[in-house]
Amino acid sequence: MDKKYLYLFSEGNGKMRELLGGKGANLAEMMNLGMPVPYGFTVTTEACNKYYDDGERLSDEMVEEIFVYLNKLEELSQKKFGDPKNPLLVSVRSGARASMPGMMDTILNLGLNDEVVEGVAALTNNPRFAYDSYRRFVQMFADVVMGLPKSKFEEIIDEFKEKKHVEMDTELDEQDMREMTVAFKKFYKDSLKEDFPTDPKEQLIRAVEAVFRSWNNPRADYYRKMNDIPSSWGTAVNVQMMVFGNMGNDCGTGVAFTRNPSTGERKLYGEFLMNAQGEDVVAGIRTPQTIDHLNEIAPEAFKQFQDICGKLEAHYKDMQDMEFTIEKGKLFMLQTRNGKRTATAALKVACDLVDEGMISKDDALMMVDPKQLDSLLHPQFDPNALKAAEPIAKGLPASPGAACGKIVFSAEQAIEEAQLGHKVILVRLETSPEDIEGMHVSQGILTVRGGMTSHAAVVARGMGSCCVSGCGEIQIDEAAQVITVKGKKYTADDYLSLDGSTGNIYGCKIETIPASISGDFERFMKWADEKRRLGIRTNADTPKDAALALSFGAEGIGLVRTEHMFFEGDRIKAMREMIVSKTSDQRKKALSKILPMQQGDFEGIYEAMQGHPVTIRYLDPPLHEFLPTSSYDIANLAKDMNINLDDLKAVISSLHEFNPMMGHRGCRLAVSYPEIAEMQTTAVIQAALAVNKKHPEWKIVPEIMIPLVGEKNELKYVKDIVVRVADEIIAKAGSDMKYMVGTMIEIPRAALLANEIAEEAEFFSFGTNDLTQMTFGFSRDDAGGFLSHYYDKKIYEQDPFARVDQKGVGKLIDMAVTLGRKQRPDIHLGVCGEHGGEPSSIDFFHRVGLDYVSCSPYRVPIARLAAAQAAVKESRK
Amino acid sequence: MDKKYLYLFSEGNGKMRELLGGKGANLAEMMNLGMPVPYGFTVTTEACNKYYDDGERLSDEMVEEIFVYLNKLEELSQKKFGDPKNPLLVSVRSGARASMPGMMDTILNLGLNDEVVEGVAALTNNPRFAYDSYRRFVQMFADVVMGLPKSKFEEIIDEFKEKKHVEMDTELDEQDMREMTVAFKKFYKDSLKEDFPTDPKEQLIRAVEAVFRSWNNPRADYYRKMNDIPSSWGTAVNVQMMVFGNMGNDCGTGVAFTRNPSTGERKLYGEFLMNAQGEDVVAGIRTPQTIDHLNEIAPEAFKQFQDICGKLEAHYKDMQDMEFTIEKGKLFMLQTRNGKRTATAALKVACDLVDEGMISKDDALMMVDPKQLDSLLHPQFDPNALKAAEPIAKGLPASPGAACGKIVFSAEQAIEEAQLGHKVILVRLETSPEDIEGMHVSQGILTVRGGMTSHAAVVARGMGSCCVSGCGEIQIDEAAQVITVKGKKYTADDYLSLDGSTGNIYGCKIETIPASISGDFERFMKWADEKRRLGIRTNADTPKDAALALSFGAEGIGLVRTEHMFFEGDRIKAMREMIVSKTSDQRKKALSKILPMQQGDFEGIYEAMQGHPVTIRYLDPPLHEFLPTSSYDIANLAKDMNINLDDLKAVISSLHEFNPMMGHRGCRLAVSYPEIAEMQTTAVIQAALAVNKKHPEWKIVPEIMIPLVGEKNELKYVKDIVVRVADEIIAKAGSDMKYMVGTMIEIPRAALLANEIAEEAEFFSFGTNDLTQMTFGFSRDDAGGFLSHYYDKKIYEQDPFARVDQKGVGKLIDMAVTLGRKQRPDIHLGVCGEHGGEPSSIDFFHRVGLDYVSCSPYRVPIARLAAAQAAVKESRK
Repeated sequence: MDKKYLYLFSEGNGKMRELLGGKGANLAEMMNLGMPVPYGFTVTTEACNKYYDDGERLSDEMVEEIFVYLNKLEELSQKKFGDPKNPLLVSVRSGARASMPGMMDTILNLGLNDEVVEGVAALTNNPRFAYDSYRRFVQMFADVVMGLPKSKFEEIIDEFKEKKHVEMDTELDEQDMREMTVAFKKFYKDSLKEDFPTDPKEQLIRAVEAVFRSWNNPRADYYRKMNDIPSSWGTAVNVQMMVFGNMGNDCGTGVAFTRNPSTGERKLYGEFLMNAQGEDVVAGIRTPQTIDHLNEIAPEAFKQFQDICGKLEAHYKDMQDMEFTIEKGKLFMLQTRNGKRTATAALKVACDLVDEGMISKDDALMMVDPKQLDSLLHPQFDPNALKAAEPIAKGLPASPGAACGKIVFSAEQAIEEAQLGHKVILVRLETSPEDIEGMHVSQGILTVRGGMTSHAAVVARGMGSCCVSGCGEIQIDEAAQVITVKGKKYTADDYLSLDGSTGNIYGCKIETIPASISGDFERFMKWADEKRRLGIRTNADTPKDAALALSFGAEGIGLVRTEHMFFEGDRIKAMREMIVSKTSDQRKKALSKILPMQQGDFEGIYEAMQGHPVTIRYLDPPLHEFLPTSSYDIANLAKDMNINLDDLKAVISSLHEFNPMMGHRGCRLAVSYPEIAEMQTTAVIQAALAVNKKHPEWKIVPEIMIPLVGEKNELKYVKDIVVRVADEIIAKAGSDMKYMVGTMIEIPRAALLANEIAEEAEFFSFGTNDLTQMTFGFSRDDAGGFLSHYYDKKIYEQDPFARVDQKGVGKLIDMAVTLGRKQRPDIHLGVCGEHGGEPSSIDFFHRVGLDYVSCSPYRVPIARLAAAQAAVKESRK
Repeated sequence: MDKKYLYLFSEGNGKMRELLGGKGANLAEMMNLGMPVPYGFTVTTEACNKYYDDGERLSDEMVEEIFVYLNKLEELSQKKFGDPKNPLLVSVRSGARASMPGMMDTILNLGLNDEVVEGVAALTNNPRFAYDSYRRFVQMFADVVMGLPKSKFEEIIDEFKEKKHVEMDTELDEQDMREMTVAFKKFYKDSLKEDFPTDPKEQLIRAVEAVFRSWNNPRADYYRKMNDIPSSWGTAVNVQMMVFGNMGNDCGTGVAFTRNPSTGERKLYGEFLMNAQGEDVVAGIRTPQTIDHLNEIAPEAFKQFQDICGKLEAHYKDMQDMEFTIEKGKLFMLQTRNGKRTATAALKVACDLVDEGMISKDDALMMVDPKQLDSLLHPQFDPNALKAAEPIAKGLPASPGAACGKIVFSAEQAIEEAQLGHKVILVRLETSPEDIEGMHVSQGILTVRGGMTSHAAVVARGMGSCCVSGCGEIQIDEAAQVITVKGKKYTADDYLSLDGSTGNIYGCKIETIPASISGDFERFMKWADEKRRLGIRTNADTPKDAALALSFGAEGIGLVRTEHMFFEGDRIKAMREMIVSKTSDQRKKALSKILPMQQGDFEGIYEAMQGHPVTIRYLDPPLHEFLPTSSYDIANLAKDMNINLDDLKAVISSLHEFNPMMGHRGCRLAVSYPEIAEMQTTAVIQAALAVNKKHPEWKIVPEIMIPLVGEKNELKYVKDIVVRVADEIIAKAGSDMKYMVGTMIEIPRAALLANEIAEEAEFFSFGTNDLTQMTFGFSRDDAGGFLSHYYDKKIYEQDPFARVDQKGVGKLIDMAVTLGRKQRPDIHLGVCGEHGGEPSSIDFFHRVGLDYVSCSPYRVPIARLAAAQAAVKESRK
């Protein structure tokens, strides 16, 4: 082969994550560290990409190579694949570069057939174990390779249990297992019209292909989109000698974290099941025991495990999430990885590791995903409202936060309701990977079964969503769409409130209050502020938003949109009067009614920002947005304004635009109607003068921003109006107040000619929403319809309105920064589009040399951390 | 002063046109050549700009400087300004860098007042002349400086004529002139509440200011816009000692061309009036004599004039347009400039000058304005239809061409009707500069008064419009909106047809036929083809257009729009079926109905183009454009297609877009519905195979163009479909036909990432319409409303949809060319937006290194010449 596509674990190491995937690299690393890891090898992510390049098949060469490594594995394990006398059984597990828990597929016990199983039974002297393993293998193979639903097999198991009047799988005996295997294989043949494959090598190749295929299954696809993982990365496959947790009561399997993933507390945290195989623990079918009980059952293995935990944490310098199996008392490590954790835990772990001297502050900053902070910023239950409420039940506090919404019973329902803007709580017996999208759109998740490491718990923590799991007090009747708690019924019309930090469940709606930044969070954010170079401003149109952003650490307002101020109350009437005016004097008269209100708005915002800088953008949207649309409203307006109905209709129709996004808006309004810019300048300057008078120490310097500029002359025309009006007012007031005039860069031409624009503009603020629309040539309002096809066909992998398109839009931004600074070295550069609060975009804005980003108040802490991470990354280069 | 703002004619020369204006530079040049030019000086164009910078006033320093030059003029002329004993009178005339005939203002006889006029009367012993000059001066000053309408003075003159029962001004005697002057001054005072200024210096300063002011009068503004003259150029002012053509019958004034400006014939061509002042000749009030009659009246002056004509033509190496005055038998040259001419004349002059050895072919190519060729390309009267028609009258053949339209009586009416899409003939007693916009929108112009050099004739030739002038047989009753010719009445409901080459006027509608390229035109275009580097293609959607373009010299088709093909006849039904389909199979079925028709279209185009390359663009417009909009049509469609009306309505409403220009169109359609690209590929490839079979020598290589690409993957996705379908058809046919797949560059992002796009695209065609829209962020459909304000406020001086915006859009094109060639050195680059036929844009496309431009068939010859001129300019650098 032209390339090395396979690696024994002993050939790899922890740094080879891109090639071997996270699981493969860490197995190799643990083996290098001398830890007990069953032998195995990894088929690389490059092999996965080759599989897709070869038309979704393994080439003959690749198959041959896999068999070469199978031979090596046989030598190492001193067992033989398919040999009943000394059989090698293997697990086949996916392992991508980034951890995608539960998203792809796993097959255990591969290598079994009717002969080999008898050999295993004889060798282990444990036929029940042998057939338990065999029936599991048939089920997993059928599911993963052939796409037969797991639930069909669960039904067969349930039939057996009923027949035998038992509740637990463990109560089924050898004969049951034998019969179940036969039943499984019969179902397989009936469904697929082919025998279950008996050749272990065929089993292996088909399993490897299935894992590669699973890289593109819908839930993996959705997970990648949510976590910005490129589909081009591919997954590796790990083929590993089986060790067995289901050989008897001296066997077991478990998962554990070196610290509490919910709170961050430094204490081993995990669960295990004796006489069970891997998936049993996380699948939530049997409720497992907490890890400390292992000390009582298998003290030696527990001690060894504790020791390994310490070593792994010291080695990886981060909280670890591990899987292990105990086979006849002997411990085997099957996986380690940096553990997923809640935002609270992430902050505590980061602070503790710094205090423990294990990592630097820079390391700590890099350890927390900025997006996670979001979960700490949203409202918590109002303690007073909480006092009055009585929990109806209690489950496990699986993922913290407060959630309130109406009940839904399926992921599909959740998605439907969320699209209607409704807040919902997803209530499930247990969740499965298929539910992931529904979980994402729900306020909170409540499950009947499953522990703290169940699927629901792990995924919810990753999402920063509130989750209460394993609440057995609830009965669900999905068909009737009812849950019953202690005899009381709740339907889709009822509210539930969940407290993910306590596990409490309330049967009512509970009010919430805003979050605050304190403790570890506060300490951590201070480190971020010390590190970052980018300033952080906020987009806020009201004193309330401004104050909230200030409490979240905003250093100013990067964008006050003034158009909202024209819609409120009586103002819309004056605005409409302005629009239908035919002369400049009429327009001035109408605007003069808005002036005092607008000035009051600005005073409120200046007061709230306590002297921090405030950038005010002049009127931006197309005029027709202000006009009434219904016949009734139009008739009323004509009456109110005492104008002819037909005249009014004519005005409204003359304002119609085919493409309002590219129409009469932004500074084009001020060019057509200079009176608007005059009024807004008067309001801004008078407001600043008034507040400066009350608080001379604030020394407010108004920043006036002209939107949608594409040409220097256009900016100059509006700026000349601003300067004329402002200078006159300031002189009349006998003040020496300064002010600045700048522009949005949101039209491609403005970016291309930024040097010319900078002759007039004292600052630029990139409006990345419009800039993205114009650069891609599609409007945000309309793109939804076809962009979904683009994602399906992998033409785009991410929404350019969510993350800035660094290649295209970014190139324009980069040009504009360079050209602008060349013309005016001290020009102040920022961004106020929605990308200003998105971490990967912030990293780009840092690299390209902006002075600040501006984002919505709730995104301010996220932006602070993302900016710090960008600075750390730069300092490490 | 910081700068030299004034030049004596003796200080200037012909190369100082930018500073001195055309008139000033040429007066200086003639003086340098020893020709008889009255002394004078020029106030520069920079002084004009300073006048505007200083808030539309002449600074005190500037006024002083003008007086310094007035002193110099007094010394040179040995006369004194304002001195009745030896008075200096001057003319004050505008003169911009580019000739703008009649657009700005002129004042003659300045320096007269009640004392000076008596001095002039005494000195010349010709009081009638003195008062004739005075009354003219009062009238011109009142008009130009104070804005009193000329017509009011004409009314006073008419009253005098009536009182004296005479017809001509020349019949009025000394006493009449005296009284008329008094009447003029009285009218002046009554209207303006101030006395007519008696101080000659004040007269001069106010006149200079008025000329500067006239630079921005509406008709000058319109002329500049039409001729792409920047308003920043400003005009110069020439102050020149008066010589008099109105001193008696041994005096006269005239204008002449060294060759015939209508036909190009090498023969002195012009008109003069004895005992008249300058404006009388061109104003069309008295009908002048042709220039050859001058030989009889003033043989010596005529001989001298002939001699000067020869020298000037040899000196300027171009046909000259001159003004002269004869004062008491002595010839004075008042102006020379390269003469405006018809396209026919331009071609003949250019060819003749080459044959005469006076200029090179390159010079000849630079001598013809490409836009002028337009007039030669449009239909001429069908000779058969013409035979059947009888002219109702005959005027002067003032500007050639054929025109047909309904009668309008004013420029305003012409504009109104033209806006409604109606073709009109503007019929006027005589035209004036105020009529220019109305003349521009008319098919042809017919005047009752005025000769071959009247305002109407000069302007029409400049525009390439058909004009018949001086047809005294017509009586106009403007009030009744009727013209009468030989007793027959014609109203706004009647058609007139004008033949500008013969002067014939027809009272009916006459059919026209297409033009052809032959004679001088053909010879000249061959020179252009030899010189140009750019290829010239055409935008054509039908075999008829393709054949026309081929006859005009197109070398291929750069753009076949396929969407028109979906609208015709039954196709729209199949198209609608496709749109409302819910599955790929349904869509394929609907498209299969369109396939044979579309294939037939392509075969027709391939046949018409006889093996020249043809670029076919795939479906581009938003789908909803194909849907019916009226309730009636929607109901019918539902019935036709046997689908539920509500379902259909839902589909139509789901296709609504807020900004269709930025919506689901272009290659986005092919991404969503690959079946469209499959069908179109089948049609293109099968058509090419079929035509290649009939004409193997043509070796057609289909060029398939994917529109609206913004990302490489998107192009790749569609290209993969094209290649799959095409290769299969070609293989099946046992052919080895090649084909190319390229893309439009019309989204800013495609230009920014052209290197990536070029990995997939074998050619680029710049779609400058969309690229302009996206780069400026305004849509062509909506921009009309506000761009007018931009022009008024001089923010933009030209329509970026008419001439490519070289700074902004051009920067993107330049980037894309560089990036595209870097990735794929042999990439073929062209443009197919409407700018492809506009000369200044073609010059840019040449400089930026494109391989070809593509334009509408009628623009092909224009593009050929513009491309040649670009090459000449380059070779001269």
